[in-house]
Amino acid sequence: MAKLTSRSEDYSKWYNELVTQTGMAENSKVRGCMVIKPYGYAIWEKMQAELDRMFKETGHQNAYFPLFVPKSLFEAEEKNAEGFAKECAVVTHYRLKNDPNKEGKLMVDPEAKLEEELVVRPTSEAIIWSTYKNWIQSYRDLPILINQWANVVRWEMRTRLFLRTAEFLWQEGHTAHATREEAWEETTKMLDVYSDFIEGFMGIPVVKGMKTPNERFAGAEETLCIEALMQDGKALQAGTSHFLGQNFAKAFDVKFASKEGTLDYVWATSWGVSTRLIGALIMTHSDDNGLVLPPKLAPIQVVIVPIHRDDAQKAAISEVAEKLVQDLKAKDISVKFDDDDNVKPGWKFNEYELKGVPIRIAIGPRDLENGQVEMARRDTLTKSFEKIEGLADTIEQKLDEIQESIFQKALNHRSEHTTEVETYEQFKDILENKGGFISAYWDGDSETEEKIKQETKATIRCIPFGEVDLEDKVDFYSGKPAKFKVLFAKAY
Amino acid sequence: MAKLTSRSEDYSKWYNELVTQTGMAENSKVRGCMVIKPYGYAIWEKMQAELDRMFKETGHQNAYFPLFVPKSLFEAEEKNAEGFAKECAVVTHYRLKNDPNKEGKLMVDPEAKLEEELVVRPTSEAIIWSTYKNWIQSYRDLPILINQWANVVRWEMRTRLFLRTAEFLWQEGHTAHATREEAWEETTKMLDVYSDFIEGFMGIPVVKGMKTPNERFAGAEETLCIEALMQDGKALQAGTSHFLGQNFAKAFDVKFASKEGTLDYVWATSWGVSTRLIGALIMTHSDDNGLVLPPKLAPIQVVIVPIHRDDAQKAAISEVAEKLVQDLKAKDISVKFDDDDNVKPGWKFNEYELKGVPIRIAIGPRDLENGQVEMARRDTLTKSFEKIEGLADTIEQKLDEIQESIFQKALNHRSEHTTEVETYEQFKDILENKGGFISAYWDGDSETEEKIKQETKATIRCIPFGEVDLEDKVDFYSGKPAKFKVLFAKAY
Repeated sequence: MAKLTSRSEDYSKWYNELVTQTGMAENSKVRGCMVIKPYGYAIWEKMQAELDRMFKETGHQNAYFPLFVPKSLFEAEEKNAEGFAKECAVVTHYRLKNDPNKEGKLMVDPEAKLEEELVVRPTSEAIIWSTYKNWIQSYRDLPILINQWANVVRWEMRTRLFLRTAEFLWQEGHTAHATREEAWEETTKMLDVYSDFIEGFMGIPVVKGMKTPNERFAGAEETLCIEALMQDGKALQAGTSHFLGQNFAKAFDVKFASKEGTLDYVWATSWGVSTRLIGALIMTHSDDNGLVLPPKLAPIQVVIVPIHRDDAQKAAISEVAEKLVQDLKAKDISVKFDDDDNVKPGWKFNEYELKGVPIRIAIGPRDLENGQVEMARRDTLTKSFEKIEGLADTIEQKLDEIQESIFQKALNHRSEHTTEVETYEQFKDILENKGGFISAYWDGDSETEEKIKQETKATIRCIPFGEVDLEDKVDFYSGKPAKFKVLFAKAY
Repeated sequence: MAKLTSRSEDYSKWYNELVTQTGMAENSKVRGCMVIKPYGYAIWEKMQAELDRMFKETGHQNAYFPLFVPKSLFEAEEKNAEGFAKECAVVTHYRLKNDPNKEGKLMVDPEAKLEEELVVRPTSEAIIWSTYKNWIQSYRDLPILINQWANVVRWEMRTRLFLRTAEFLWQEGHTAHATREEAWEETTKMLDVYSDFIEGFMGIPVVKGMKTPNERFAGAEETLCIEALMQDGKALQAGTSHFLGQNFAKAFDVKFASKEGTLDYVWATSWGVSTRLIGALIMTHSDDNGLVLPPKLAPIQVVIVPIHRDDAQKAAISEVAEKLVQDLKAKDISVKFDDDDNVKPGWKFNEYELKGVPIRIAIGPRDLENGQVEMARRDTLTKSFEKIEGLADTIEQKLDEIQESIFQKALNHRSEHTTEVETYEQFKDILENKGGFISAYWDGDSETEEKIKQETKATIRCIPFGEVDLEDKVDFYSGKPAKFKVLFAKAY
């Protein structure tokens, strides 16, 4: 396999090569849609399993709603419709027929035109709230805490594997509540679930905060988000949790009788993360040799490579390796013993390094004599000799250490790439020469935000949670009194 | 909640009421598409988990391919295209815009017409084989053993919840092999996986066999299938495994270099089961009181209902119940202790009976005095008293017994409703008055099959596997020499 382009040479090219060479994903023959290949999908499955567990632990159930949204439902919540109308795939016909002018070709059958067009869901608020209407009569029917694992389609013009694709996989939670307070609590709770997952499981540090009105989800009253910083200094929105207020309840006339007998609109939230997170995973940890995976997400956590010259050596090494495999499996550690004789150890080393297997164990005849093996850590590219006795315990401990270590490394990178600025000159200088998050005061004016965006391509990623002393502080751009301290960055 | 219509009164109505009243699914506002509600989805999740385990155990990996199939790929395999063109949803545009004539309404933007129409996948052979083309150069790239969990769309005109919906969820395996033999082996292996799952896990007995050419999957050389018999005497195709020969490899020009250096087309299989199986589950086991679930699929396997008059009784019962909950959880048995005081025990009994919870434990103060509880079996509607001591063990054993028992019951029903006939008169009589599978000799002529179908609506469900002595046997309809012994039935 070809060596990857280095990150310093061309970050974007490095990313694409890494994604395709590791067998994670590739572009398909459908414009903007990707094929998620087995190795990439295995990572997604691990993410799904953990998120699903966390959703259920917080009281949510899964369900499944239709792929299609009839146009009349799609347009019901005006802002939501406006936000997604520009990039939606529309089904207009339900049949193809033989093309009379082209032998063996098909054409849309004009007689099979739908009375009402169907939008392929870009997000499911409309179809779900039109359904909730029939489920909710009284406070006894609330809350509804539902999540859906699904594919969605947004007709993006510029696409990149995982990061931005016309079709992507995600989960979308849609909850209904009797009070504003309860809906708010859900909105923040799910943001916490996301940040716990992304930091603890994916090893990606995130900043929690609130979006500005410009950056809000179409149809939300508030959008909470978690923002991560990539190695190249660009930010990536890793997850969002929306407080929808009563917007969708009003659009679909969903009211409930309260305990007191009054009739009121239902309060809503929605929240989602997607396969985009795999892009964040890659751009947070990986290096010029390939993928670096946090142990908790690695489809293969440990690979064992035997090194032998003859059958006697092979047998002796296999015995030790098989024992290790059993010990690791007993600890629920996924392990692969790669004893394929058709491939040389060096090739295997490269392959598993490229694929980000956290720990590689190499066993040669000399090692056996010394009662040890060679352990290589993928994240640090360091090697050590470890005793065969108690090796499974050593590995278990090391995997925890790696999980923690790659998070710390990413956290350090973010700290080093978060800069406070007070002037627009500083702002542009940092943006140009250093990148990363720029922490600055903002006057709360959307126009200021928009001008900065047009001049520099940097956007306000979020208004981080927490108290900030704004006294005497001014907006670095407009000079007006500051209303917020925010994080700017160029973003994926 | 309203009592269900009885099965004898109106089977179809009973089915619909059961599906909606149990909260399994409901019709959506999108023609022919259903909403799979949490209780129905929980069953699907259990099915997925087990199937997914079985697929991986047999060497398959999951991946994900695009939802859309460009028309030019869709039409490449002619028979496949012909089979699905009549019922496919077609995306023609990628944008909506404000309708200038209708305030607040949207319309398809005529300027956003796709150059090439996209078919929403009714099945994924075309998109997958156009992808495999790039993955396969030599025998070293084979076999490819991939499965996909996905939604598919077939524009069915007459739809029924779970049984036939325009959109449904399924899994589709797509494998590529170097030899005909290997592809055949895969085709039969996956049929075995399906029948093991459906019999062992869902408690539904199936007949394994081969489809006639008339009933084959469009584009397959052979379709293997498993056929189940519903309570009302109609058959239901529970799963199919297709030997695709080299049809798709030829359509997409997928060749590989063999060990010997020759260039040959790749051999293919595909196989799938869908949410339709949930319909089969319902119509195999359930009764006039509601759902009957095999323990291995029940989201709640055991429910505990306390019966008390005062707080002291409640406390004493809760102590026993909580202990039981812990003991059952330790055995991985899912249990719900329903101590909601706002609902009467009788209402709970009905509710859990309707929902098919396999075992109900009721605990009253008198029971405690006697060191026992009341156990009710959902499948037989029988009750017994069981000692509190060792109760978790008793329940574990009983769940196994129920799993086996409901399979046996269904098997007996099928035996009683499988009839051999030798004349067309007998055939029509059985079909009209008894239903079920009709075992009969067939001359192998598609015309005979078609005539019988038109006259009686019965189709050949399959040619069951196994040796049959055909000497001197004649087709019951045509009188011509028999080529096969087959199973006829009216089918869902």
